[in-house]
Amino acid sequence: MPLWTIYHPADAFTDADKEELAGKITDIYGAVMPRFYVGIVFQAVEPNNFYIGGKPNGRYVRLVLEHIARSFPNVELSRRFIDRVNKTLQPYVADRGFDWELHIDETPFEYWSINGHYPPRPDTVDEKRWREENRPSPRTHD
Amino acid sequence: MPLWTIYHPADAFTDADKEELAGKITDIYGAVMPRFYVGIVFQAVEPNNFYIGGKPNGRYVRLVLEHIARSFPNVELSRRFIDRVNKTLQPYVADRGFDWELHIDETPFEYWSINGHYPPRPDTVDEKRWREENRPSPRTHD
Amino acid sequence: MPLWTIYHPADAFTDADKEELAGKITDIYGAVMPRFYVGIVFQAVEPNNFYIGGKPNGRYVRLVLEHIARSFPNVELSRRFIDRVNKTLQPYVADRGFDWELHIDETPFEYWSINGHYPPRPDTVDEKRWREENRPSPRTHD
Repeated sequence: MPLWTIYHPADAFTDADKEELAGKITDIYGAVMPRFYVGIVFQAVEPNNFYIGGKPNGRYVRLVLEHIARSFPNVELSRRFIDRVNKTLQPYVADRGFDWELHIDETPFEYWSINGHYPPRPDTVDEKRWREENRPSPRTHD
Repeated sequence: MPLWTIYHPADAFTDADKEELAGKITDIYGAVMPRFYVGIVFQAVEPNNFYIGGKPNGRYVRLVLEHIARSFPNVELSRRFIDRVNKTLQPYVADRGFDWELHIDETPFEYWSINGHYPPRPDTVDEKRWREENRPSPRTHD
Repeated sequence: MPLWTIYHPADAFTDADKEELAGKITDIYGAVMPRFYVGIVFQAVEPNNFYIGGKPNGRYVRLVLEHIARSFPNVELSRRFIDRVNKTLQPYVADRGFDWELHIDETPFEYWSINGHYPPRPDTVDEKRWREENRPSPRTHD
């Protein structure tokens, strides 16, 4: 959690851009959960494989965010999060003339496993240790 | 919304096929929402990377539809929609000897953003404007 | 159902590995449903397109499982299933020094279609026939 899939034009980002953006995205989540929770897949798509409104489009960045570790308790907090994501994306998309779109899906916390472990509940002793050590390990509580 | 991902054999579709099919898919949604809502990603997959029933398969088209802007109010309407999609797909899949499969997931309307805007609710004044102009703009109501 | 997407380092699996693993995954589901329900897409991802914790990662296998035909009745059964999946994956990931992570999403049974058919409900006469014949056909009961 989260898993981001970023469909983008092939020439949109350099490798340095991608690592920088991945770092900033990870910072958003890293304030409250282990950084290694954040997975990001970049997928370059050619215009002949990407259609918006029925037309080939080589200027569009489409982001799919799957959230597992946390779910939004209310719309207000989701807006605050999405606004922050949009602000983080701005220099990489809007400022380069790309249109962009994102949506978030939330999937069940229980149906999630890392290296064979079931991740600890948010803000537990175990999750704090995972966060400090930035790697999964056997749960010692509950 | 919607975001379609179409996994297909590399030789299944020409670029002209893809654009034509994308146009027809967009027509289905365009009757009730802005055309630019419709995003379609084609992903060619080689048989050694695509397995059905445990066997490599080079004759299968697998479609994943993520719906955001609208959710089905009942099963009957979902059937009518899926039947129409299947009919639209027929010349591109069944008539060419491909097997095909699709499923739809519905994700939360609120967790969705285009160019930094939160899309307007269905059938509002703002959505009508987005549809007429075929682009997002600041919401003027609500 | 299910649709698995497996993001993996380009050098992680040979074609023989992929087919073998696909067969074992299909065996898990095949005990209770038609084998042809199981679709698996392997996607090789280069480290400059795959980030974990904000860093490029070439040693990570990320699996996304979309479940349609069945949903877990309780957490205990989901654990039994996920434990079995992890055990199946072990020789292909853990034993090769890869980290790995999986999550499962469940999507609506009704919004699913194969070759234009709506799959029969679990454990019905029609599903048993589909399973025996390992292909879809018109439903004779409903």
